[in-house]
Amino acid sequence: MIIDVHGHYTTAPDAHKEFRKQQLARLADPTLPEPVYPGISDDVIRESVEGNQLRLLRERGGDLMIFSPQASAMEHHIPDPATARAWARACNDMIARVVGLFPEDFAGACQLPQTPGGSLDDSIAELRRCVEELEFVGCNLNPDPSGGHWTSPPLTDEYWFPLYEALVELDVPAMVHVSNSCNPAAHTLGAHYLNADTSAFMQFLEGDLFGRFPALRFVIPHGGGAVPYHWGRYRGLADRLGRPPLDGHVMRNVFFDTCVYHQPGIDLLARVIDTDNILFASEMLGAVRGVDPETGLHWDDTKRYVDALDLPDEDRRKVFELNARRVYPRLDARLALAIR
Amino acid sequence: MIIDVHGHYTTAPDAHKEFRKQQLARLADPTLPEPVYPGISDDVIRESVEGNQLRLLRERGGDLMIFSPQASAMEHHIPDPATARAWARACNDMIARVVGLFPEDFAGACQLPQTPGGSLDDSIAELRRCVEELEFVGCNLNPDPSGGHWTSPPLTDEYWFPLYEALVELDVPAMVHVSNSCNPAAHTLGAHYLNADTSAFMQFLEGDLFGRFPALRFVIPHGGGAVPYHWGRYRGLADRLGRPPLDGHVMRNVFFDTCVYHQPGIDLLARVIDTDNILFASEMLGAVRGVDPETGLHWDDTKRYVDALDLPDEDRRKVFELNARRVYPRLDARLALAIR
Repeated sequence: MIIDVHGHYTTAPDAHKEFRKQQLARLADPTLPEPVYPGISDDVIRESVEGNQLRLLRERGGDLMIFSPQASAMEHHIPDPATARAWARACNDMIARVVGLFPEDFAGACQLPQTPGGSLDDSIAELRRCVEELEFVGCNLNPDPSGGHWTSPPLTDEYWFPLYEALVELDVPAMVHVSNSCNPAAHTLGAHYLNADTSAFMQFLEGDLFGRFPALRFVIPHGGGAVPYHWGRYRGLADRLGRPPLDGHVMRNVFFDTCVYHQPGIDLLARVIDTDNILFASEMLGAVRGVDPETGLHWDDTKRYVDALDLPDEDRRKVFELNARRVYPRLDARLALAIR
Repeated sequence: MIIDVHGHYTTAPDAHKEFRKQQLARLADPTLPEPVYPGISDDVIRESVEGNQLRLLRERGGDLMIFSPQASAMEHHIPDPATARAWARACNDMIARVVGLFPEDFAGACQLPQTPGGSLDDSIAELRRCVEELEFVGCNLNPDPSGGHWTSPPLTDEYWFPLYEALVELDVPAMVHVSNSCNPAAHTLGAHYLNADTSAFMQFLEGDLFGRFPALRFVIPHGGGAVPYHWGRYRGLADRLGRPPLDGHVMRNVFFDTCVYHQPGIDLLARVIDTDNILFASEMLGAVRGVDPETGLHWDDTKRYVDALDLPDEDRRKVFELNARRVYPRLDARLALAIR
């Protein structure tokens, strides 16, 4: 089976997006009434994914996608906790409805109601709700709620520990995923996302987070940002900074996805990173949606690149399925139950 | 001949570093006297490079290094213009002395006295002094003087245009190079440097800077940050954002160096980026100074990786020499003069 661990609900219905607009309008003008989440029919939801993520998943040979709210729309830079709570809840409820309509095709990963420098209590409560009540299998954690100014402490700081305790207790991983950039120096899709991936990895290298939380697991998306391309630099920096070798220090707990949109990138990823640490993903419909005029193929059809890797079959099965089932044990349990 | 376009004077004498300490002490306590730059003998300067950059350059088969002040010590985040001016001048004068002592081995690239959000007038004046009086062949331009909070406009903003006019007039390129990170979320060597490379490239992609300044040239160091690894993403983003194809839009003016510290990374770089756009460099003595225990070789001995590339001889000569002479015409003129 082929599991895509990184898809976003970028095609959510207009009514859903309208609710967000009303939230933001009310922040600008508090005399406006509190927005009420609209009724959205199952048919509208079906339609929003059937011609998009679901069609592409099936056309390209994928079996299941771990589905989360649109990352760039999380907008954690907005500091009001009540707004963040209501928005995360609305987004996650929509994911739950998609999963409910297509339970064999999707599993949920949740958005957290983070705010810049704010308490993580709301995030922990929403994580619990999504995992325990909505049967989600993972979450997206934003290391920079400020949206490109990096005002939060590194992911190794104790600020994050209460959330990590919940992640470990619930046995779900977090994908490190920022939201939109509010900084004109860092384009959301072309700089901020990749920079966050790179920064997070280096934070893990510098610290000793997994000595304290040996069961904590992170997926770093977009192929690990710049990290595999600079793998020698990271091995050398670990040595220079007196950190242990990366395999035991970081790579028991950190995994990279395959959202790298050309064959040479995927070839490099598989060449330098142990296949136990690579999880198949496409990010679709995500940053890059078109067709490469040089190949006539979609840039984000990452399955083709993984298919083309010179890998033993058992390693390819790890990348496509087994690693995801190990990193997301609640997904594995669901799949095991479905087989019975 | 083999030209290394990216080396830093990370081994500057203690007396030089002491001057900086006195500068910072005076900023903290304005009652202290203005520091006077110390007398440093030629022997001390010779010694500081002979056993370090010069030894390694020769041992590894390099012929000439474009040498600039220690990047992490530029410390552009300190907002006082007079301090920035004096420090850049002191650092550049030291580079000029190294070049004067070893004119066949080094050529100078200068530090600019940037400050966060400050006028670029001082930077332009120092650039002119270094190129016209000290015969430097390039400069380092910091896209984020704040040191990790990214408070400056993108490199495509008109804020930077007066400097670009000087660069074009003087016919010298700028290497995009940040200084130390003041942000605990972004390690200087393991995140901030690479993120700046990535962000700068995406800024060029988003804008149309080279339509306005067709003769402006940038070297993006550290192998172009995350860019070559994600080359498909950038090609796809250019398409999605309605920008022209990258070859004409960006890659006539932007060059990547080879500071990527393992063979798979260099292999990827050469596979996806035209050899006309790749400049040999080591960054030594830079981020990673040790020996890879797996190979017994220095991580930053990047010549070995380029030697091992499956490249036609004429392409390898471009990477090692001809591209550098084209991008740094003042270096080319100096070399042509030396031959006569």
